[in-house]
Amino acid sequence: RIKASGLKLRFCTNETQATREKFVKKLQGMGFDISVAEVTAPAPAACRILKERSLRPHLLVHNDLVPEFAEIDKANPNCVVIGDAAENFTYANLNEAFRVLIGMEKPVLISLGRGRYYKETDGLKLDVGAYMKALEYACDVQAEVVGKPAEKFFESALAEMGVPPQQAIMIGDDIVNDVGGAQRCGMRALQVRTGKYRPCDENHPHVKPDAYVDNLAEAVDVILQQL
Amino acid sequence: RIKASGLKLRFCTNETQATREKFVKKLQGMGFDISVAEVTAPAPAACRILKERSLRPHLLVHNDLVPEFAEIDKANPNCVVIGDAAENFTYANLNEAFRVLIGMEKPVLISLGRGRYYKETDGLKLDVGAYMKALEYACDVQAEVVGKPAEKFFESALAEMGVPPQQAIMIGDDIVNDVGGAQRCGMRALQVRTGKYRPCDENHPHVKPDAYVDNLAEAVDVILQQL
Repeated sequence: RIKASGLKLRFCTNETQATREKFVKKLQGMGFDISVAEVTAPAPAACRILKERSLRPHLLVHNDLVPEFAEIDKANPNCVVIGDAAENFTYANLNEAFRVLIGMEKPVLISLGRGRYYKETDGLKLDVGAYMKALEYACDVQAEVVGKPAEKFFESALAEMGVPPQQAIMIGDDIVNDVGGAQRCGMRALQVRTGKYRPCDENHPHVKPDAYVDNLAEAVDVILQQL
Repeated sequence: RIKASGLKLRFCTNETQATREKFVKKLQGMGFDISVAEVTAPAPAACRILKERSLRPHLLVHNDLVPEFAEIDKANPNCVVIGDAAENFTYANLNEAFRVLIGMEKPVLISLGRGRYYKETDGLKLDVGAYMKALEYACDVQAEVVGKPAEKFFESALAEMGVPPQQAIMIGDDIVNDVGGAQRCGMRALQVRTGKYRPCDENHPHVKPDAYVDNLAEAVDVILQQL
């Protein structure tokens, strides 16, 4: 319905446990009309940064994300890229990433997101942000975060659509990463009362969505009504 | 020579990869006149805190340290104690410690030290401080640090000797954890130019030892000369 109305559409995700191909297949299976070219995700955003700055990464990421970096030179690394590596967050791999970083004259750490934790069927898991903090502390550096809520990430999505922030609206379930991040870029933002949403979000000390909707379908209704 | 002079002596260590028994055997093998009763170490200091506050720990520590907590009730944990767990810092163990913490109404995290990293024969390793930061961030808590440079830790050592800080002197190789920590307690402190010492320590922005000595033997000379 969004597409049929003539509005431009992009999907912004912090997913770093899989390539965009896998992510898109999953959403297609749920009935979404979506293609890889419509997805803004941290790994390709990081690849652009790596190319622009001639950075060669040591990767500490999920095995399924590695193909996103296929075209990037990884020999003789001069930065570390960390994502939600899940089972790859071993003691040995963390020490190795640390040694690469601490061995640099000026350590460069790029983190695909800054999430604290997330829930899976077998329980809560530490997210990439926790491991980012461990490396930041050990090396006395500050990571560059790629992904929501980084302004640059939203700006990429807007540039890909060719739309100024004032003419764009973000729909998301995460009060800080989706709503707060988009608003800081000058976009408006709706929070859906599904997924990560919690009632206490409505009393958030810093972030106030432009409106609440009960679910994604209602968000579409609200947007199309105002065209 | 220190003991023969009548001075009181204690050994303050942040060692958390082994019991005091193992630590003492190692030093005895190097020729030190030392017994377990003369050692102030983070694990027994943590045990005192656990008993005082009726805390039952979930332990994320090195296997060799576990015996130090033999007398502590660990059923139905209401806090997490983290030490340099080395190979025990697995993805599964970190997630488990995190779940115990996040499940508490008011998470209590006790960290045996806050070191960033250390060197072993096979290279640099992340120390307990890095994993402490990961859990702090994920749970939005601040850890209580037991061990140098915490004031309470030095105060314990002084109390065990029955000596006020003004009458005590610390000898150490670590400008921040040994020298800075002891001085903040009102003690004087010598830095030895061995071990962790680096020439740049002599330009440290915040900490200035009361004197430098080339090694431990010279520290003993200097102290005994001034009696």
